Amino acid sequence: MSRWEPNSRERLGEAALSLFSERGYAATTVEDIAARAGVTERTFFRHFGDKREVLFAGTEALLEIVTAAITNSDDVAVPFDDVARALDDVAAFIGSRRTRAEGRVRRGLLLQNPELLERELIKLATMVTTMAACLTTRGTSQATAILAAEAGMGVFKAGFDRWLDADTDDTLPDHVRAAFAELGRWSQPAPRLRR
Amino acid sequence: MSRWEPNSRERLGEAALSLFSERGYAATTVEDIAARAGVTERTFFRHFGDKREVLFAGTEALLEIVTAAITNSDDVAVPFDDVARALDDVAAFIGSRRTRAEGRVRRGLLLQNPELLERELIKLATMVTTMAACLTTRGTSQATAILAAEAGMGVFKAGFDRWLDADTDDTLPDHVRAAFAELGRWSQPAPRLRR
Repeated sequence: MSRWEPNSRERLGEAALSLFSERGYAATTVEDIAARAGVTERTFFRHFGDKREVLFAGTEALLEIVTAAITNSDDVAVPFDDVARALDDVAAFIGSRRTRAEGRVRRGLLLQNPELLERELIKLATMVTTMAACLTTRGTSQATAILAAEAGMGVFKAGFDRWLDADTDDTLPDHVRAAFAELGRWSQPAPRLRR
Repeated sequence: MSRWEPNSRERLGEAALSLFSERGYAATTVEDIAARAGVTERTFFRHFGDKREVLFAGTEALLEIVTAAITNSDDVAVPFDDVARALDDVAAFIGSRRTRAEGRVRRGLLLQNPELLERELIKLATMVTTMAACLTTRGTSQATAILAAEAGMGVFKAGFDRWLDADTDDTLPDHVRAAFAELGRWSQPAPRLRR
């Protein structure tokens, strides 16, 4: 993080996404990414271990966000609500740092490159484990914590896809909240029909 | 599938799980697995592309099960219920072919070997995509289909972990159904307190 190369981390991220999209993931080298970002390869390796990691730069921040959200919550009655709030914070964070167009490019790359998709799935699984661990630290049983975290992550993934597929101005948090609300309605007893 | 080597596929699966567990995944070779199963390496490669695939031998069957369950369902009102039924069939299938002890060994291997965990997560993601595609074929919107499939898979994963962690005789389907039921209760409006 040299002061002669401001924002080099962000610029590397943007350069990598553009190049992966233009030339393909396999055909892009660290040298290409550094050149496009206007930094040296040495600077690249100060920030990232390899080219794959550039697409997962925000993982640590996401884990901190869910940890803070669950640890600081006052409401311990319904763990699933805490998970929903934690993922609402995640949605706000991602939505503020990534445009939908960038998200679509990234999803395309994941679907075309198994090693990227595998890395993404590991990231999401780590978020599940982290949320469950925070809930158990607060006193929720392991069984309930894992259920809340796994089901919540499923809802989040669906909300995320809806955001990428939508053609409206609804934000990522809007879509994630709508997905949680829809799941909640399915679980209600079906309304009785009037005779 | 030579008739001179009956059940070689099953025997290879059992041999691989034992050897991975005894010696570690990295230290076990295809030659070792074939020898333990009493078949030739050539027979191994008639069944599996590499040693990793032996742990994922049932994937095609699982995809067929969820496809049949959703495609043959008469109830199109609540897609989440169809997903729950499909995963109930999956639980019955796995529970009939794998003991809890084997499941625990397999989970330990996944957690110790990132390439196995990645492969497992890809398998589960493929089940989600397959369930969602079956629902959309039947007329469910893409948005709702993905939500039902992702959330349902989250519940299934939690139920599966509960089964592995349990010390009772409850079956895998018991645990998966209990997890779906618990999620359903969270989504009910909280009971009003009497004043």
